[in-house]
Amino acid sequence: MNKLIAAIAAKQNPTVVGLDLRLDMLPAELLDKHIAAQGETPEAAGAAILEFNKGILDALQDIVPAVKPQLACHEAFGVPGMIAFAESVKYAKQLGYYIIADAKRGDIGSTSAQYAQAFIGKTRIGNTEYEAFGCDCMTVNPYQGSDNLDPFLDACEAYDRDIFVLVKTSNPSSSDVQDLLVDGKPVYRHIAEQLAALHNRHIGIVVGATHPAQLTELRDAMPDTVFLIPGYGAQGGTAASVAPAFANGGHAIVNNSRDILRAWQKRGGHYAEAARAEALDMREKLQKII
Amino acid sequence: MNKLIAAIAAKQNPTVVGLDLRLDMLPAELLDKHIAAQGETPEAAGAAILEFNKGILDALQDIVPAVKPQLACHEAFGVPGMIAFAESVKYAKQLGYYIIADAKRGDIGSTSAQYAQAFIGKTRIGNTEYEAFGCDCMTVNPYQGSDNLDPFLDACEAYDRDIFVLVKTSNPSSSDVQDLLVDGKPVYRHIAEQLAALHNRHIGIVVGATHPAQLTELRDAMPDTVFLIPGYGAQGGTAASVAPAFANGGHAIVNNSRDILRAWQKRGGHYAEAARAEALDMREKLQKII
Repeated sequence: MNKLIAAIAAKQNPTVVGLDLRLDMLPAELLDKHIAAQGETPEAAGAAILEFNKGILDALQDIVPAVKPQLACHEAFGVPGMIAFAESVKYAKQLGYYIIADAKRGDIGSTSAQYAQAFIGKTRIGNTEYEAFGCDCMTVNPYQGSDNLDPFLDACEAYDRDIFVLVKTSNPSSSDVQDLLVDGKPVYRHIAEQLAALHNRHIGIVVGATHPAQLTELRDAMPDTVFLIPGYGAQGGTAASVAPAFANGGHAIVNNSRDILRAWQKRGGHYAEAARAEALDMREKLQKII
Repeated sequence: MNKLIAAIAAKQNPTVVGLDLRLDMLPAELLDKHIAAQGETPEAAGAAILEFNKGILDALQDIVPAVKPQLACHEAFGVPGMIAFAESVKYAKQLGYYIIADAKRGDIGSTSAQYAQAFIGKTRIGNTEYEAFGCDCMTVNPYQGSDNLDPFLDACEAYDRDIFVLVKTSNPSSSDVQDLLVDGKPVYRHIAEQLAALHNRHIGIVVGATHPAQLTELRDAMPDTVFLIPGYGAQGGTAASVAPAFANGGHAIVNNSRDILRAWQKRGGHYAEAARAEALDMREKLQKII
């Protein structure tokens, strides 16, 4: 996580911007332009998403250290959506962002090895190695246990990449499974302890901004672990609710997607300028609680 | 699950073939041909994977009712891999297969809605609706709870599609999380009960062939639920170990990936013919235990 920690320090801003686009977040004229050129097609949607993503990336490059493109929002448009994902990642890399693929992947070991190759590792073809998507980091689902995690960690070690493992997610029904009590402690806490026992500097955990009590509990238990905190803004998280993650010099990065991508709907003006204004507001709020 | 149950009955074969290709499973001459044409590139790999997948699909179309393309194996080759995935799905659909996208997706509700659109639903662009990948079914990870599942179920209802939710997976370390005891019952059993309470005919569950005791326990608890059973063959599952899933007229489909895709390495001859011979063997073994 050294690269992420350094990027946060350099920008003095523990914000990651989620590229979680839906078409209704796009300014109508931007989408209409691509539909006029290519019809109501996935190709038009992919081109519009890529243009929007690039506009956001351009606007925030000097103030935001990291972006988190969401796979689902790109897969929803099939291959043209995945082209937009790949091109957005390449562009973000050129601009120096730390890139977290929000993939929440997980499977049996041999399959996880291929997910790791796809997003944070390299794929060998004959004698040549390629980066399929070439991100710095990805999110991983822990439900299948340690032999699922191992291939991701192997890729982290080999290429100096990182993973964030889901522990306590921001959504209301995260309690259904994650809060089940095992020997008096919730499932998410057992997973956190399994991860902590690995003492691996490439592993961070995901804890929702909507759960300040759990942020406190997990920060106490894992003082040196980097937290990825979704759920700020539209889902209800605030600077105050994420503050416990930063206690005692703890490292964390707070995700904001919708409030930044859709800032133009609230603030008016060009979407990129509105996004920048919103991101500056968020930085100011976070700087006050660190 | 009616379409899957009908497809199994029509072929008298509860087998699903996993399209979980790695390049070392390809006959050298097939890969070399594409490398000669396009170099050691992801494009060559994607073209080789698509040709191989099509050969398998052609060879098994009259004896196997369903295929389960694995996303990881295609994502590992970036956009060219996703093109191979999309084209393999289209081809399988033309041949009449029931198609299970092995995606193991799951996220907060608004994101899961986009995963559902991608694989089993439709994506709206302007006034036009498209199927991004157009599968019949997909696998889903339950770690984020019910508001993660709801959008998948909405897509199932709207388009008569299905999902298989991970309950007890086939890998050795599935015990790390899934077997944690909550009020004397393992986590996977609590998830199974949450799913059973929904009484939704579009939900099946994933239970590994490597866990015959759990297959028995879950079949008793969920007599009407369709089971997707990975782990047959290379991972150690046998016809005997999956038999409990078929007790009392229970519906299940057993996955075989590696033993069928790599049958040519054991049996010699053309890979498609070897795959067919292996699939026929498996059908015979399964027919004996049903």
